[in-house]
Amino acid sequence: MTGVTHQKWWGWGIEGVAFTYDNKPNMPAFVLDKVGIDLTAPGTPPPSFADLDVPATRVDDALADALREAVGVAHVVIDDMERVIHTYGKGLADLVKVRAGILPRVPDVVVYPGTEDELREVVDATVAADAVLIPFGGGSNISGSLTPRGDETRVVVSVDTGRLNRVLEVDEHAGLARVQAGVLGPDLEEQLQERGWTSGHQPDSFRHSTLGGWIATRSSGMQSDKYGDIADIARGMRVVQPGKVLELRPLPATSSGPSVREMVLGSEGRLGVISEAWINVHRLPENREIIAYLFPSWGAALKAMHAVSISDAQPSVTRISDANETAFSFSTQKESTGVSGKVQDVLFETLRRRGWDLDKVCLSYVGYEGGAARIKADKGVVAKIVRSHGGIRLGKGPGALYDQKKFDTPYIRDFLLDIGALADVSETAAPWSALMDLYTNTMRQARAAFDELGVRGFIMCHLSHSYHSGACLYFTFALASPHSDPQLQLDQYWHVKAAVQQSFIDSRGTISHHHGVGTDHAPWLEEDISPAGTDVMVALLRGVDPRANLNPGAILPAHREWTTGTIPTASSGDGTATNGSSAAGDGARRPAART
Amino acid sequence: MTGVTHQKWWGWGIEGVAFTYDNKPNMPAFVLDKVGIDLTAPGTPPPSFADLDVPATRVDDALADALREAVGVAHVVIDDMERVIHTYGKGLADLVKVRAGILPRVPDVVVYPGTEDELREVVDATVAADAVLIPFGGGSNISGSLTPRGDETRVVVSVDTGRLNRVLEVDEHAGLARVQAGVLGPDLEEQLQERGWTSGHQPDSFRHSTLGGWIATRSSGMQSDKYGDIADIARGMRVVQPGKVLELRPLPATSSGPSVREMVLGSEGRLGVISEAWINVHRLPENREIIAYLFPSWGAALKAMHAVSISDAQPSVTRISDANETAFSFSTQKESTGVSGKVQDVLFETLRRRGWDLDKVCLSYVGYEGGAARIKADKGVVAKIVRSHGGIRLGKGPGALYDQKKFDTPYIRDFLLDIGALADVSETAAPWSALMDLYTNTMRQARAAFDELGVRGFIMCHLSHSYHSGACLYFTFALASPHSDPQLQLDQYWHVKAAVQQSFIDSRGTISHHHGVGTDHAPWLEEDISPAGTDVMVALLRGVDPRANLNPGAILPAHREWTTGTIPTASSGDGTATNGSSAAGDGARRPAART
Repeated sequence: MTGVTHQKWWGWGIEGVAFTYDNKPNMPAFVLDKVGIDLTAPGTPPPSFADLDVPATRVDDALADALREAVGVAHVVIDDMERVIHTYGKGLADLVKVRAGILPRVPDVVVYPGTEDELREVVDATVAADAVLIPFGGGSNISGSLTPRGDETRVVVSVDTGRLNRVLEVDEHAGLARVQAGVLGPDLEEQLQERGWTSGHQPDSFRHSTLGGWIATRSSGMQSDKYGDIADIARGMRVVQPGKVLELRPLPATSSGPSVREMVLGSEGRLGVISEAWINVHRLPENREIIAYLFPSWGAALKAMHAVSISDAQPSVTRISDANETAFSFSTQKESTGVSGKVQDVLFETLRRRGWDLDKVCLSYVGYEGGAARIKADKGVVAKIVRSHGGIRLGKGPGALYDQKKFDTPYIRDFLLDIGALADVSETAAPWSALMDLYTNTMRQARAAFDELGVRGFIMCHLSHSYHSGACLYFTFALASPHSDPQLQLDQYWHVKAAVQQSFIDSRGTISHHHGVGTDHAPWLEEDISPAGTDVMVALLRGVDPRANLNPGAILPAHREWTTGTIPTASSGDGTATNGSSAAGDGARRPAART
Repeated sequence: MTGVTHQKWWGWGIEGVAFTYDNKPNMPAFVLDKVGIDLTAPGTPPPSFADLDVPATRVDDALADALREAVGVAHVVIDDMERVIHTYGKGLADLVKVRAGILPRVPDVVVYPGTEDELREVVDATVAADAVLIPFGGGSNISGSLTPRGDETRVVVSVDTGRLNRVLEVDEHAGLARVQAGVLGPDLEEQLQERGWTSGHQPDSFRHSTLGGWIATRSSGMQSDKYGDIADIARGMRVVQPGKVLELRPLPATSSGPSVREMVLGSEGRLGVISEAWINVHRLPENREIIAYLFPSWGAALKAMHAVSISDAQPSVTRISDANETAFSFSTQKESTGVSGKVQDVLFETLRRRGWDLDKVCLSYVGYEGGAARIKADKGVVAKIVRSHGGIRLGKGPGALYDQKKFDTPYIRDFLLDIGALADVSETAAPWSALMDLYTNTMRQARAAFDELGVRGFIMCHLSHSYHSGACLYFTFALASPHSDPQLQLDQYWHVKAAVQQSFIDSRGTISHHHGVGTDHAPWLEEDISPAGTDVMVALLRGVDPRANLNPGAILPAHREWTTGTIPTASSGDGTATNGSSAAGDGARRPAART
């Protein structure tokens, strides 16, 4: 009908694809031991859409007709399945809610513009009707940025960019491509690679996220050390706003005042709908290798990655897993691949004899791209650093395996939910000098949160992106909830999530390195960028969208939102702006704006 | 008294230091031939301050007392010399005006806060009195960002950050330094280098510009290919705003919504006064070399630099001069240094025999930093690219010379003004695919402007910063004005400057790569970032500063400014935002906001 395919309405990824432990013989014992979850217990079947009580659409005929006029009858969809699909992203809370049929507010209509002109008409009609507009790309958002506010009384229009999926032109001389914002990762790479180019952008969500979504949330990919974050990659853009189009031409750099480009990046729909972007593209690399290394401890691995980041080497990927994630990785390996079975036993025995504590081993991947000479030189620099930090080289096998399987991880959350376990992620970035404490504090705070709940829980971490002055740490946590009641599950989830996010802030980290703010991280925004920084953000968003039609609720904490008719005041009131410790220290505080 | 030293009130740099052609035997003939200017003609002596008619200060006792209360009596200065020094930057128009005593509006008082707390009191007192606040760093701005509007009726306070000049701490682990914003380039590097660190930031203005100024104008240094532009270097910052401090912690990256950090960058005082910043710092490089090359043509040189930018090499400096700038460089060499005299004759004879057209020769510098192996590999990659584009290696001599003399160039403008010649610069950035046309168009437009004026003129260009998808082109132009009347000189200057800036916009370039917008480039802002982009900028600036106390007139074109009491409307009115060709094509249009 619309020609746009979607992820499962109730979970991650493609209908029919699911995680299985069948080919991972060590995994059930590991998970039972660490988290107290029995993977072999019978899981609940996927939820049935028929059980959902979907609230009726509130769209009126005038707006619906205007939208049909804009995009054609076939591309204005009011059926319940489509509306539910466009209600949530894929955060853990989203999954719990949609499975349980918790649907306080569902978009009233889904619109699929096929051109920028159609998109302009959609935006104008929506705002003219004083309705709310929420852009929707691949639906993979995990920070709560796609969901209408629970108390939204206006009509809500979800604008799905799925039909805007073409590479429009490649400037081969400049290494720039003009691409429509609704293109999914694999589709983008296919169109680019058939012309000999790549964007190099590979977020974990790659298969189910779009260029527009990457820009709107300041996404980062696993090869960002070489290709840059999307903030580096996206050079020009067009954003459809009420009555006009914001046009930023592709420039390698500019000093034209405060960067409007960097305002669109991370704007999560609040400045309009991104219709297309000019992105840096690169020739496919001559060679590409991912090498695995092992370190005797997290501290040693962290020091080694820091040394690599300030060395003469310029790898494309720098990744280290802590001991927990390393153990998890080994437990999920298939019998026939990677460093497994007998080979692994022999390796570990050797390391034990060398004095390694096998409970502390950390797995690392470093990627290399370019000409043979460059790769050789970079590998030499890294090898020396690895050795000087007590590490060893495992080789290409595990790296190749990681490279193949890197996009499969998100499926595991749905499998765990089926058997009553809650798993999700939180990630941050901080200076190198803060990372060890941030890691230790976050592990401690998460465990304290598990204890407070009286549940078994597990938390693991990897470093995924390195910069000159710091890096991104990416935490995954899981807990065995005793509850089947979704609200009780959510309470437990938010208790842990909040402890982790608060630890980031208290440990000199940011609330998110590459997942955006959404509603889930918004309660910490003022601590992240200071109250005065939040005032600046409000001034910007409110000045552009005085009636709050553009994805209200995203980015800003609820008490900083405005509605039509409220008196504009940019200041939070008390005039002070020291960015100290948490005002309340309420580890249980949670994003409530949209529930 | 205040302990802060300043540049000459009437020109660039330090009193007593001046450009001379005495040791450059080939220069007079070159300049006479190319621009029709006789360097040996008697110059006018420096202007006399006694001849100036400085308007009386308008500061009232209440504000003056509040400022003295804030910073101490010694640090509130109302004398005419200080006020004139703080009236202008060092653009060509600034120099013409200050020499001629054209002083429509002079800051009424200059204040030197010694701490951030004092700065807070200064900002609060100034805004409470509804006065205008203009931050002043090294005073080297060349885009008109420091000058009060000619029709400003409110009291104008120039806040000089010169006493805020310390490196407060170095985070050796993270490679970050916390530095007060008023520190000048050499002072910063001295404080860093005595601890073994460098910022790597070396703009042409280095000796007379400050960290705060670099951030406020989105500065870029000649080693930006390795160290990044200031937008990459400055990771955290504190900005004093009325009643509060905007605090951004140092983060390697973040996805906390639209980047407030990137709003402060380039804000030219309109979001407050930057008090300090966390900047990336690096260990001093093991080795550092600048190698000179020659190319047979600008086209070949441009292609070679592009090839370097997408190669496996990562040089610290990539610079090529066009044929005019190359000829100028050779003409200004001292007899005893570089590739000069006999050596140069032999070299050129050899090239001629090889078939080179010596009128088209282009000089290039490429810088290398790091370990010996890395430098060797990078030089090898570059050497191969140079050869394949018909170029040759000149060696280290000219590179070392360039490295020593790189900060001396601005002195030449004052010398030329003394003999009635007007010289200035304009720089831009554009995609690689646009650069050759941008270059050709700009040379043509400048020459057309010279012809329209009926004057002899000269324009030359270099490429100074390379990126994946484009580069910065930096133009220097000079004309022999027949006029001694400063207003007629200014008319001629703006005629050429406007032609150059319009060519940038019409040729897919930005209005400035690293000099900021100020008032000089503001007339082209809407063409650069589109009218809708300007609406976004207005929303931001106006939301933060509704009464226009913070450096009004900078960045925005005059018709987008607001004053206390005007009705807020962010839109320019017509609702369209196509970013097409110049609305009027008026090559003579000029920045009028502050004259």
